[in-house]
Amino acid sequence: MSGSAARAVVIHAPHDLRIDSMPVAAPGPGEVRVKIERGGICGSDLHYYHEGGFGTVRVREPMVLGHEIAGTIEALGPGVTGLAKGQTVAVNPSVNCGQCRFCQAGMPIHCLEMRFYGSAMRFPHVQGGFREAIVCRAEQAVPVAAGAGAEIAAFAEPLAVCLHAIRQAEHVAGARVLVTGCGPIGALTVLAARHAGARQIVVTDVTDAAVAMALKIGADHAFNTAAKADALLPYEKEKGQFDIAFEASGHPAALAGAIAATRPGGRIVQIGVSGTVPIPLNVIVAKEIELKGTFRFYSEFAWAVDLLGSGAINVKPLLTATLPFEQAVDAFKLASDRSKAMKVQLAF
Amino acid sequence: MSGSAARAVVIHAPHDLRIDSMPVAAPGPGEVRVKIERGGICGSDLHYYHEGGFGTVRVREPMVLGHEIAGTIEALGPGVTGLAKGQTVAVNPSVNCGQCRFCQAGMPIHCLEMRFYGSAMRFPHVQGGFREAIVCRAEQAVPVAAGAGAEIAAFAEPLAVCLHAIRQAEHVAGARVLVTGCGPIGALTVLAARHAGARQIVVTDVTDAAVAMALKIGADHAFNTAAKADALLPYEKEKGQFDIAFEASGHPAALAGAIAATRPGGRIVQIGVSGTVPIPLNVIVAKEIELKGTFRFYSEFAWAVDLLGSGAINVKPLLTATLPFEQAVDAFKLASDRSKAMKVQLAF
Amino acid sequence: MSGSAARAVVIHAPHDLRIDSMPVAAPGPGEVRVKIERGGICGSDLHYYHEGGFGTVRVREPMVLGHEIAGTIEALGPGVTGLAKGQTVAVNPSVNCGQCRFCQAGMPIHCLEMRFYGSAMRFPHVQGGFREAIVCRAEQAVPVAAGAGAEIAAFAEPLAVCLHAIRQAEHVAGARVLVTGCGPIGALTVLAARHAGARQIVVTDVTDAAVAMALKIGADHAFNTAAKADALLPYEKEKGQFDIAFEASGHPAALAGAIAATRPGGRIVQIGVSGTVPIPLNVIVAKEIELKGTFRFYSEFAWAVDLLGSGAINVKPLLTATLPFEQAVDAFKLASDRSKAMKVQLAF
Amino acid sequence: MSGSAARAVVIHAPHDLRIDSMPVAAPGPGEVRVKIERGGICGSDLHYYHEGGFGTVRVREPMVLGHEIAGTIEALGPGVTGLAKGQTVAVNPSVNCGQCRFCQAGMPIHCLEMRFYGSAMRFPHVQGGFREAIVCRAEQAVPVAAGAGAEIAAFAEPLAVCLHAIRQAEHVAGARVLVTGCGPIGALTVLAARHAGARQIVVTDVTDAAVAMALKIGADHAFNTAAKADALLPYEKEKGQFDIAFEASGHPAALAGAIAATRPGGRIVQIGVSGTVPIPLNVIVAKEIELKGTFRFYSEFAWAVDLLGSGAINVKPLLTATLPFEQAVDAFKLASDRSKAMKVQLAF
Repeated sequence: MSGSAARAVVIHAPHDLRIDSMPVAAPGPGEVRVKIERGGICGSDLHYYHEGGFGTVRVREPMVLGHEIAGTIEALGPGVTGLAKGQTVAVNPSVNCGQCRFCQAGMPIHCLEMRFYGSAMRFPHVQGGFREAIVCRAEQAVPVAAGAGAEIAAFAEPLAVCLHAIRQAEHVAGARVLVTGCGPIGALTVLAARHAGARQIVVTDVTDAAVAMALKIGADHAFNTAAKADALLPYEKEKGQFDIAFEASGHPAALAGAIAATRPGGRIVQIGVSGTVPIPLNVIVAKEIELKGTFRFYSEFAWAVDLLGSGAINVKPLLTATLPFEQAVDAFKLASDRSKAMKVQLAF
Repeated sequence: MSGSAARAVVIHAPHDLRIDSMPVAAPGPGEVRVKIERGGICGSDLHYYHEGGFGTVRVREPMVLGHEIAGTIEALGPGVTGLAKGQTVAVNPSVNCGQCRFCQAGMPIHCLEMRFYGSAMRFPHVQGGFREAIVCRAEQAVPVAAGAGAEIAAFAEPLAVCLHAIRQAEHVAGARVLVTGCGPIGALTVLAARHAGARQIVVTDVTDAAVAMALKIGADHAFNTAAKADALLPYEKEKGQFDIAFEASGHPAALAGAIAATRPGGRIVQIGVSGTVPIPLNVIVAKEIELKGTFRFYSEFAWAVDLLGSGAINVKPLLTATLPFEQAVDAFKLASDRSKAMKVQLAF
Repeated sequence: MSGSAARAVVIHAPHDLRIDSMPVAAPGPGEVRVKIERGGICGSDLHYYHEGGFGTVRVREPMVLGHEIAGTIEALGPGVTGLAKGQTVAVNPSVNCGQCRFCQAGMPIHCLEMRFYGSAMRFPHVQGGFREAIVCRAEQAVPVAAGAGAEIAAFAEPLAVCLHAIRQAEHVAGARVLVTGCGPIGALTVLAARHAGARQIVVTDVTDAAVAMALKIGADHAFNTAAKADALLPYEKEKGQFDIAFEASGHPAALAGAIAATRPGGRIVQIGVSGTVPIPLNVIVAKEIELKGTFRFYSEFAWAVDLLGSGAINVKPLLTATLPFEQAVDAFKLASDRSKAMKVQLAF
Repeated sequence: MSGSAARAVVIHAPHDLRIDSMPVAAPGPGEVRVKIERGGICGSDLHYYHEGGFGTVRVREPMVLGHEIAGTIEALGPGVTGLAKGQTVAVNPSVNCGQCRFCQAGMPIHCLEMRFYGSAMRFPHVQGGFREAIVCRAEQAVPVAAGAGAEIAAFAEPLAVCLHAIRQAEHVAGARVLVTGCGPIGALTVLAARHAGARQIVVTDVTDAAVAMALKIGADHAFNTAAKADALLPYEKEKGQFDIAFEASGHPAALAGAIAATRPGGRIVQIGVSGTVPIPLNVIVAKEIELKGTFRFYSEFAWAVDLLGSGAINVKPLLTATLPFEQAVDAFKLASDRSKAMKVQLAF
């Protein structure tokens, strides 16, 4: 960053990702300026890069990407207390209005005026965090324990997503758990479920690399269902053996497999997003399965920062590579290759 | 019934419904013999009649149909107490094993050895209750309050299904409720939701007759979505207005409509059975909707009998016609015509 | 009310209740002025009158009493929409801050800056609603259905308390319910539990008048435990028969009785307030009883107004007498006599 | 053990603990004989020893004590599969009937005919497990992973109690947790809460030894409230800071402290048993606290064995001493001294 300008990673159109420069304001009252050091590339960033959006959401103006960001506080606005220059912080990319009926009902995730970094759902788009510096509300900047660097803190956002999923599952302690899909979110869900006391964790994916990663980070069993479609068959015994399934792929076959292997009265937490998919409604009914969507996070962000800072959850095995942000296109290409990459970060 | 033989309504093949005679045993220890007086025709009976089954379930041997049955106790086996000859009873068609892991976990609905009257899921099939007399366990025969006849008591089974659905919804008191599909199950769900303190009940169906019935039995609003596909549009405002939806049709469009009109964090209880249907998984995720299957009933059977006996729930408007069981084919045809029929009963 | 002054019922000290005059402001932006017509006397009003407070709460300056109030809108402040002059409204006496951690967590009842009418918990005290006119936020004034007068609408507050208690119980539909204590709150709980589908309601109190009222408003059984201490003994069979108990008296004996008669895993909702009381902790443990406090209400206020307006809950039998507010002392004396009075209202 | 007789630790009267010999049967169908190797002394054993019982329960005939037992399978009865001679097993001391209404409702803990080893609640008493050999149902004998000895496996019972308490708390993952009382049960609750993902664990006790142990096994903070009565004061800020409290002492002051420091809407799980104690009901009400009893365990026994076998929960620091069973009196005296002993085991 030079003077009061910062360079940023900006999507203009599919496959048109540029490094643009933009002004950085001084932090106002209650705000801080954070020097961004690491930014993790998320699946939605990849969708913007490859397809210009997902579902009905389209990039309609240049938008800074990125919402998995961490860095160092470099300036405090008037009235900010409890933070100090030089602290390493994870930046919560989610800003709710606090006033709407969902905010007042304790459901800020569903805020009617939610502003989420690097999202084209609203217009003008909410600009993202892949930039050399950002000004945000003080409460968005959550300090991580000394010694944990920005590359660890930048996992706070996706880990928070998974901790929120764990909360939706409600009874993970002692449960037999299935995780379908072991990309970054599936893998972090494995770590989070283990942390929450899952008794058994079985993972499926369609790549050998993901299966190997699942075992490396502590899954009890992991299967490549592309190679062996009926790998979960033994778990379908007696109407199903899993108490809880986390569906992190968004693929119909994975969801159908989870439905078949979950016991009557069990719960499937749907994390993976996709469009309209076929599901065996008759099995949902006959086994009284609960299929529950989980979306983003709220109070789990600070919890994630705690767990990363203390090392209670170790995400280092998931970090495939870190590239200078000037090489964002290469980084996005690498992140798109599931046989090689789990999480790819940009360095600022 | 003549002597120790009883006539019964037996499905042999699609559209091959016969009146057959079969022996009736004397009740053994802990059993009673019930003279059946009324039997309600259910959607699954119609599936056996028209298609010989549903999904992968097929009639493979002659099977007595019927599981919505009521009558009078005419003989008590040795050791039976608490029941008396001449009492009007509803007969619970569901017999669980009491030993399997689901029975011992308080989930008898999912019993691994469940025997349910008039069902071809097991082989040999479990013979049903459309017969002049049946011998069953004493605890299956639940007395209804004096004055409520067998035609009322025969609603116990489908009402129990709906009361179980109400329990799956958990927080019906004070809730804004949508019911999609207003056949017999949808209509009984309207009555049950009202009984459980729902604050608002909105109903959709695709026939004018069902919509009129919904309003007659107390729905606040009812819409024919075949005539007006966007009838629920106002309820989609601000991410959805219903706290709870009961999906009682099994149709993808109804479920999609329920998903769109249910608020974030709301619950959809799936009662209607169908095969594999497309659902907008992205909306389930983004609104953190809970889609929960509900199947049959257990302790709700006795509760249903109570409510029917006391008149707390009045099912009389739902009884379209009663035909002698010898005219079963006519009765099945009438029951199949949703523009004319809600519940059709056979008289024995 | 004359001009811009209004008379009010003001507690100065124990047994020093006066009619004082005070100015009434014009409604500001987002506010309305309500001509109060009825005010129900609550147990806490009686505590202020007889003892000057309760627990550690003491009246330390003159305070208008009253929080069960209803009347007619007589002026709208700038920007108020959705309300009209002349409408009969119940006034919600509860104003939360909307900003604190409990408000933002969807728990406004526990707002750290809660302002509740006629309460000496804060200093300066929050002045109450027993006055000829009051200015409040527009959203506090909830219109009741045409035809339901202010005497009905003034039940909204205590009914909301009971509906909130019902929600804490979670599974009232189909439950066997005990209500201990049948003063106004116990009686409204009986009505609310019936509305929410309770299968059986048994009531205890220590006065014959309350027992008679319980039966009049629909309890299945009611007992005077002062006359017959072991009235609940049959319900203690097999570790307890009630699924849910609502303890509305605050008396240790009533709570102990509820604990004894509630089944293992059952829930006791504590509504009645008292100080430190002895409870059989060993039974709480051995039966895994859940004892849950319930306090005030939030969204249930509008629900209560709905139910009162539609007549779904009929509170008329509970209204003992209505006295002109100038006779407040007589009214408070009458309201204090449980053998004669259930709910006493003041007319303004 | 010699021949078909086994010696056992038998309570005859307060402070009259003897080593008696008794016959050992051959295992019948579905049974196994276990050579007991370790038996942990529990608080209830101490109550029998010092006072001859607790509450209304009294020893009325000689009774073998002990229900925390583990050993090696030495004989299999006819028809037993899945177990082998020589396996180290923990023995579940809890035998439910499987038939009563609580068993059939999935609540075996509340079985009306529960037989629990070493308990004088029924008469004849259920003989306990402090003996050289015992014959039990095969399903009571749960194999522990190879390498974990009987001294570890004998922790399965108390750990199961704590895991069941964790389940009663429902949302331990991410919660701020208080544990009051750090004897063996409190300490195992600390370990179990950590395993289930508690975000913060604060412990109180009245001995320095227990406080030191709490910190040693991973509590974030621990206080001796005998030395510093207001140690929890900072946690009472803003109506309370703990989401969940586990009360493991049974002392009124500890419970009152937990109530004061638990946030509105929080849950207190009562594990510690005592008689009738005073509790501030007004605070339970005003903060809408949930006080829930927890009693024994069921499916958590096998889970506990898993965790002990894998080392996921390390109980070794809790084992103070192991004495030959012939020195049972000395062992009981040591176990009674909280300043010296956490868990004391007998070796057989």
